[in-house]
Amino acid sequence: MPLDLNTQSADFAAGFEALLNSKREMSVDVDAAVAAIIADVRARGDAAVLDYTNRFDRMSLSEAVELRVSADEVDAALEQVGPELLAAIDLAATRIESFHARQMPLDDHYTDAVGVRLGLRWTPVSAAGLYVPGGTAAYPSSVLMNALPAKVAGVARIVMVVPTPDGVLNPAVMAAARRAGVTDILRIGGAQAVAALAYGTDSIRPVDKIVGPGNAYVAAAKRQVYGIVGIDAIAGPSEILVVADGANDPAWIAADLLSQAEHDESAQSILLTDDGAFADRVLAAVEDHLERLPRAATARKSWDDHGAVIRLRSLDEAPALVDAVAPEHLELALDDPDGFAAKVNHAGAIFLGRHTPEAIGDYVAGPNHVLPTARTARFSSGLSVFDFLKRTTLVGCDEAALRAIGPAAVTLARAEGLGAHALSVAIRLNEAN
Amino acid sequence: MPLDLNTQSADFAAGFEALLNSKREMSVDVDAAVAAIIADVRARGDAAVLDYTNRFDRMSLSEAVELRVSADEVDAALEQVGPELLAAIDLAATRIESFHARQMPLDDHYTDAVGVRLGLRWTPVSAAGLYVPGGTAAYPSSVLMNALPAKVAGVARIVMVVPTPDGVLNPAVMAAARRAGVTDILRIGGAQAVAALAYGTDSIRPVDKIVGPGNAYVAAAKRQVYGIVGIDAIAGPSEILVVADGANDPAWIAADLLSQAEHDESAQSILLTDDGAFADRVLAAVEDHLERLPRAATARKSWDDHGAVIRLRSLDEAPALVDAVAPEHLELALDDPDGFAAKVNHAGAIFLGRHTPEAIGDYVAGPNHVLPTARTARFSSGLSVFDFLKRTTLVGCDEAALRAIGPAAVTLARAEGLGAHALSVAIRLNEAN
Repeated sequence: MPLDLNTQSADFAAGFEALLNSKREMSVDVDAAVAAIIADVRARGDAAVLDYTNRFDRMSLSEAVELRVSADEVDAALEQVGPELLAAIDLAATRIESFHARQMPLDDHYTDAVGVRLGLRWTPVSAAGLYVPGGTAAYPSSVLMNALPAKVAGVARIVMVVPTPDGVLNPAVMAAARRAGVTDILRIGGAQAVAALAYGTDSIRPVDKIVGPGNAYVAAAKRQVYGIVGIDAIAGPSEILVVADGANDPAWIAADLLSQAEHDESAQSILLTDDGAFADRVLAAVEDHLERLPRAATARKSWDDHGAVIRLRSLDEAPALVDAVAPEHLELALDDPDGFAAKVNHAGAIFLGRHTPEAIGDYVAGPNHVLPTARTARFSSGLSVFDFLKRTTLVGCDEAALRAIGPAAVTLARAEGLGAHALSVAIRLNEAN
Repeated sequence: MPLDLNTQSADFAAGFEALLNSKREMSVDVDAAVAAIIADVRARGDAAVLDYTNRFDRMSLSEAVELRVSADEVDAALEQVGPELLAAIDLAATRIESFHARQMPLDDHYTDAVGVRLGLRWTPVSAAGLYVPGGTAAYPSSVLMNALPAKVAGVARIVMVVPTPDGVLNPAVMAAARRAGVTDILRIGGAQAVAALAYGTDSIRPVDKIVGPGNAYVAAAKRQVYGIVGIDAIAGPSEILVVADGANDPAWIAADLLSQAEHDESAQSILLTDDGAFADRVLAAVEDHLERLPRAATARKSWDDHGAVIRLRSLDEAPALVDAVAPEHLELALDDPDGFAAKVNHAGAIFLGRHTPEAIGDYVAGPNHVLPTARTARFSSGLSVFDFLKRTTLVGCDEAALRAIGPAAVTLARAEGLGAHALSVAIRLNEAN
């Protein structure tokens, strides 16, 4: 049974605090095993990558060139994807590109009142690596959401790594990679793939940034190569918070809660409502749906272990509770969702109104579905073009401009005891000591 | 002696590769000690913070309220700062605010062609913590550079922690904190300060993001609390790459190289020039300056151990070498610095022309002096308002809009085997299975 809280109960504060602090993830310590794999890839390069790939994915590759999925293989895979799915991938890609293109920031170059030239310049990373899990978790939507922001940002080389256990390619993943402008596809996974992307091998040029979801080994490998390359946030289990009044169809809201719960047993779905009878109807509708869903076992475990219903005196109580949860996904099934959204500070993505199920954002709305989990929306954001861009600042002084602002720099440098800093300015003003 | 490379030598590639891969930092493993301090602060709160502060900083505080630096104490400290330094702090602050204000991104709300409402909203973190080292490394410029982007971003609570060994406050640091809009000042440091900021105590409310430089303990503590709060990048030793032709005054360029070298023994200064005789004159000028600089011992060690001069056939060789180094600071003492800058992809900050010493950017130019080190400018950027903002995406469908894009979401969800995702859309289209 999910947790059932009521803001009118004396023990609400304690129950809500426990909900906020509940751990949903088992952390598996694979650091030593991962460090050994990374060291081996650094030492032996392609040979090590081939060995691990053959061992873990039951392959029998002998040459580094075989690590690469050829254009012909992608062509062949695409023929296995039906036209309806190809069209859906294309619609999703077009909408994701369009939304992310609007994020692209502009450079700024100006000269200030004392003649100092100033600038802020955005440039893409040279190469990005995209990790795609193999097997059942290989989602074409995830390929689109990770690769398209890099493409829109102008990244010249986008390298996708995807393990292919027993050599089986996922056709929909190949179709998404092709549509998203992935430039290189490698049939490798695990810590060995992350190491190859970060450090390079004879056949694999290193990248500057690695993004994408993965298992405990992949997450540990990303943490270990961080600094050599940039990485995205390590995502935790997915979560949704739905704020719904009694005017909703309980079956719709129940479906939304279950769409998070079916991701994995650690996912979390929370309902906030001011209508207790409606809450009961949603609970019943969840049970009803669970009888028919393909991933009912996973969804039930998530719902029973981590789900929660919070019954409110009034919807006025909700914004503060939402900010405390800082949910990855916030769904507002209300008459005035915009008014409510304006009262919320912390959420990864907000879904406005009764006809906006969260799943629409997982696929085709346009915004990214890679979002901050586990209350990190308090300080972090979803994947975007900004993850593949970096800023360079520019300053240019002529003699007059340096004369205007240089003396203050000399004063500060001397106050900080940094004599060469002071000298480098003063010597240009003919005032060196 | 600094490394002396020549692109015409047969061993240049090997020498340059060695320069790129040289480690300048000793990593000290303090993880276990730091983990114990964090656990203690989580368990005992203010009492633990008081104990560590009394022990490490030779203080004798007995009440949590004493951890706080009062407004009266700041007032008193300000009276010890001379008018010239106060004016320099104010000029720097005004220019830094102005540059960072131009970075502030705009929200974006629009309705697309099929009627889907889409949005991107920027909001500040609720509270930021700023670590300021104690003793000789307590720089007022660092307070300005870390606090002002938070202030400009709209962060309501900016908490500065600064250890005060033997209870001594640094007046210039207090003046900078006051000018920068720091709302709370705590006389604490080390891992205990980071733990208190991340987890909170009875007297210290937790923050959402922690920035600022610190020693190995502080860096380890920031890594360990990452995820609970956001952190900035862990900065490595500072570095500069100067590209200079023979028309420069060698004494100016030598001062610039030494302004990095004096930071600490792990700092790195590199000169690229197409004029060998000029290179020799710079080397001589470095020796000349070193006879008079207050931090000559530090600067000499850095210059001898990590410095480098690279003699080029032609300046055309320089952009590729610069991109390989991806320097924190790039100084272009050339006739056409803008033309050269346009050929460079990776640098934290660029200083244009013969009258723009890097030190001007450390203090008063306006751009931030917290910049990516150790080749991380390939994928990361200097501190900015973006470090204190996060994005929320918004999606709103009415029935017609959902009917336009929903079927593709259903197709993708079914292809990925996610039945509840498909259901949550289909049920709203009256097409549930």
